[in-house]
Amino acid sequence: MNAYNFYAGPAILPKAVLNKATEACKSFDEFGLSILEISHRGKAIVSVMEKTDKLIRDLLGLSDDYAVLFLTGGASSQFFMSAMNLLKNKAAFVDTGTWSTKSLKEAGQFGEVDIVASSKNDNYTHFPKDYSIAPDTDYLHLTSNNTVCGTQLHSFPDVDVPIVCDMSSDIMSRPIPIEKFGLIYAGAQKNFGPAGTTLVIVRKDLLGKVDRAIPTMLDYQTHVAKNSAFNTPPVFPIYVSMLVCEWLVEQGGLVEMEKKNKEKAALLYTAIDESNSFYGTTALEDRSLMNVTFKLHDEDKTDDFIAFAQDQGCIGLKGHRSVGGCRASIYNAMPREGVVKLVEVIKEFDNK
Amino acid sequence: MNAYNFYAGPAILPKAVLNKATEACKSFDEFGLSILEISHRGKAIVSVMEKTDKLIRDLLGLSDDYAVLFLTGGASSQFFMSAMNLLKNKAAFVDTGTWSTKSLKEAGQFGEVDIVASSKNDNYTHFPKDYSIAPDTDYLHLTSNNTVCGTQLHSFPDVDVPIVCDMSSDIMSRPIPIEKFGLIYAGAQKNFGPAGTTLVIVRKDLLGKVDRAIPTMLDYQTHVAKNSAFNTPPVFPIYVSMLVCEWLVEQGGLVEMEKKNKEKAALLYTAIDESNSFYGTTALEDRSLMNVTFKLHDEDKTDDFIAFAQDQGCIGLKGHRSVGGCRASIYNAMPREGVVKLVEVIKEFDNK
Repeated sequence: MNAYNFYAGPAILPKAVLNKATEACKSFDEFGLSILEISHRGKAIVSVMEKTDKLIRDLLGLSDDYAVLFLTGGASSQFFMSAMNLLKNKAAFVDTGTWSTKSLKEAGQFGEVDIVASSKNDNYTHFPKDYSIAPDTDYLHLTSNNTVCGTQLHSFPDVDVPIVCDMSSDIMSRPIPIEKFGLIYAGAQKNFGPAGTTLVIVRKDLLGKVDRAIPTMLDYQTHVAKNSAFNTPPVFPIYVSMLVCEWLVEQGGLVEMEKKNKEKAALLYTAIDESNSFYGTTALEDRSLMNVTFKLHDEDKTDDFIAFAQDQGCIGLKGHRSVGGCRASIYNAMPREGVVKLVEVIKEFDNK
Repeated sequence: MNAYNFYAGPAILPKAVLNKATEACKSFDEFGLSILEISHRGKAIVSVMEKTDKLIRDLLGLSDDYAVLFLTGGASSQFFMSAMNLLKNKAAFVDTGTWSTKSLKEAGQFGEVDIVASSKNDNYTHFPKDYSIAPDTDYLHLTSNNTVCGTQLHSFPDVDVPIVCDMSSDIMSRPIPIEKFGLIYAGAQKNFGPAGTTLVIVRKDLLGKVDRAIPTMLDYQTHVAKNSAFNTPPVFPIYVSMLVCEWLVEQGGLVEMEKKNKEKAALLYTAIDESNSFYGTTALEDRSLMNVTFKLHDEDKTDDFIAFAQDQGCIGLKGHRSVGGCRASIYNAMPREGVVKLVEVIKEFDNK
């Protein structure tokens, strides 16, 4: 039986990527050494770093105005690092749940935080879009996709300041209007790779403008100057991310991924909406294409459903512990047949 | 032909570890999913984290007074993070080369730095041991092994303050008098695992004593409270580190490792000392058991020797770019036969 992996993160990776990653652990360079034991200054790994940079630039359409960095510490480290490097006076935040709440809390240590919109009073079940930005604002911070509550921003706003965006859970799932962004960060472990590296894309002209002292490793300029090899980078997680990018190109790039992701999400939301037992938990227009959150009208049957689905090979459907219910994460690497299988399971459970 | 990997880091890993790591990339949990794509909150990975913690405690003889953390960002991030968390007034530093110089520079942002001893004027070819610590000092910072110049501290000093120690390149290579240490940190990619995680061992009673504001992810207390899973940890690098610890236990633990490391180093230093072409670059009593640095009397032949050795399967012998010459890194995982092979190569080249 095929196991379909619906975990929210670390999350499903394409089979072709896993096969190549496995091979690289066994033997990678010209001497037959494993990728886990060779120097990051050697040509094999330097080539991996360069290829990954180029693939990301091609996929997202980045100009030389942007640097691509492979850091560590997850999005949680970018919460403070983005503010430490970019916040001079005031940052505007749209509060859309767990992750943006954490992010604005960390930013508050470095300047004024202006919460211009929040869906907190509605349990974060929608994505607020009606707000204005004060003129003395350095940047607008958004969390483009919210894994916990299952909302996603489907169109980025036109604002007069650069957008700083946590794209941890929907990076590479669709084309983006890159010119709107000053900084994009993403923990790799959803759409981009395994746990262990954090992708940062930053507009270089925004750097070096704050007065505060910044430790060397926390200054984006350090990593820009050394192409993410100021110190030893997380070699293997970066390599697997490179394989994911190659796979994305083979799939037809981000336009094609978006099309597939929309199709998959439509299949699943339709099954939920047409059922008698289940309902979606978020506003229709803000439903995430990545994390489909739903509940049972009879909440007591939630665990039964999750066990029933697991018995049929659908793994990892438990909702985030803070909201309960169910969550099916259907990132790029989830094949259509995985979603079709889950739709069958939902229908079967519904008919019982 | 066997390739022997003498890289300084990322560095050689035991074959048994690489085989198990490869297997885990292919299939790991009860559902046949790869270790690269499963949740860090699931029982398979929670068990990895717990096992690794226990193995480290057993190997190093840690009491419950110490926390074991798996962070990211390398020793380079601990340079500032150790000071940010522990430095109230003054830190004493012994300056033994590249890494301690970087470390004391970062610490200077958080308090007074007192360089109590330095071998800078001798190009860091020895490890200074004669110094005193002022009474108002918070801790003494040491770099126990210096990969660039090839010196190592073979006996830790008796001082009245806790020692903060960068053990990136000799952690787990020998037993240590743990009661002397307040904090130990080590990038994994030498003796402990692949690139991508940083081991931190900290005496818990030293935490929470500074007044400054610390971002959540930079506060050791955050990670102590959540057993290194406040956010997604670098799962695979931690798993490989667990495998290394299991291998160390199978080898007989750190007493046995030290014995083997001394034997290997003696073989190699003897060959260098008895040769006509080569000489060791560091003070005899401070020679590193991990990174054997040596030069040719005829420096112009350095590249010839490195190419000659590579042709015979000895890979990665080029010295650090800042000092030149040759360097053979013979960490725990380097088998005795690798050192024997290099000794043969040295003798053969010497006889030419």
